[in-house]
Amino acid sequence: MKPDWQRINCETLRDYRVVSARDDTYQHIKSLETRHFLVCDSADWVLVIPVTPDGDVVLIRQFRFAIADFVLEIPGGVIDPGETPEQAALRELQEETGYVAQSLNVCGSLFPNPALNTARLHVALARGCERRFQPNLEAAEQIQLELQPLSRIPGLIAEGQLCHALTIAAFSISGLLQTQR
Amino acid sequence: MKPDWQRINCETLRDYRVVSARDDTYQHIKSLETRHFLVCDSADWVLVIPVTPDGDVVLIRQFRFAIADFVLEIPGGVIDPGETPEQAALRELQEETGYVAQSLNVCGSLFPNPALNTARLHVALARGCERRFQPNLEAAEQIQLELQPLSRIPGLIAEGQLCHALTIAAFSISGLLQTQR
Repeated sequence: MKPDWQRINCETLRDYRVVSARDDTYQHIKSLETRHFLVCDSADWVLVIPVTPDGDVVLIRQFRFAIADFVLEIPGGVIDPGETPEQAALRELQEETGYVAQSLNVCGSLFPNPALNTARLHVALARGCERRFQPNLEAAEQIQLELQPLSRIPGLIAEGQLCHALTIAAFSISGLLQTQR
Repeated sequence: MKPDWQRINCETLRDYRVVSARDDTYQHIKSLETRHFLVCDSADWVLVIPVTPDGDVVLIRQFRFAIADFVLEIPGGVIDPGETPEQAALRELQEETGYVAQSLNVCGSLFPNPALNTARLHVALARGCERRFQPNLEAAEQIQLELQPLSRIPGLIAEGQLCHALTIAAFSISGLLQTQR
C-alpha cells in the first residue's frame, strides 16, 4: 500500500528540552488538498523493567506534567546523543532509582504512538538490580520508589493501580508476566 | 506526596482537529523557578479489540503521519462530545472497518502517555463482530483490514510485526492473550 499523502513541509512550533512540537504539512497526492498534523519530535525512548535478586520490581511513582498528577510506572527516558538503548536504560535506572543492574537486555522496540510521536520505544529488562546510589534527580523529576513483587504486577494492572499504557506494553513484551499467572 | 510544581499558565500553540498543542508553564513551589512543558490536549480516546465469531481479530494497517508509515494496530479514535466510550468504540469500529459487534464491554482505562497527553485511553473488547458495511473513512484515514487468528497475536508481537505499544497494552489488559498461550 502506498501513502495517499506526502509531507511537503515541517515547521517547529516550539522546542522543549527533549521534544519539539512540530507542524507537518501533508498534501494528498490526487486531490492536492493540504492538511496540518501535530508531531511530537524527539530522539528514541527507553523503558527499563528493573528486577531485584528477590524478585521485586523497582517501580517509580512520578509526577507527570500533562495530567498534573503522580503515576506508577517503570524508569525510563529519552536516549541521549551517542548512547545505545542499553546505555540509556542503565543511566536512567541509576539516575531515577539509584539501582544498578547485573545484566540488562533489550527485549523489543515499539512505537509509543505513531500518530503523534516520531520516537521508537526500546524496552529493556534489567536483572539482579541492587541499590548502590542515591537517585540523582533533575529539578523537574519528582519520583518516589515503590518496590512490588513481580507476582503482584498482574494484580496491580487488573485493579487499575498500574495504568500507564507504555509500562503495561513493556511488561507485556518482556515475557515476565506469563510466568506469574 | 505533594507536587513540587504548580501550573501557572496554559497557552495553546496551535489547534488541530482532535488535539491541540499546548504550552503549560509550571512554577516550583520553593525555588519559584518556572519551566515550560509541551502538552497534547484532547478528549479521551478509545481502542477496540474486534473479535469475529470464528476467533479472528480485525486488525487495521493504518498510515500514521508522525512516522509517515503504515502501522498494524486495532481500530480506535477520539471520543466525540456526548459519547460514552462504548458508543465511540462501536462508531470507530464501524467507520474504520465496516464491522458491527454483537457485544461490547470496556475492560479498562489507561493513560496512553501522561508525560505528554491529557487523554485517558479506554479499551473495549467487541465480540461477535461481523462485516455489515463498507468502511466509512475520512480523507486522512488510509486503512487496510487484516484479519488474524487470536492465537497468532502473541507471535505477531514477539516477531515485532505488531509493535504499536497502545495496541499491545490493550491486548494485555483485555485478558484475551492469556488463553492463547
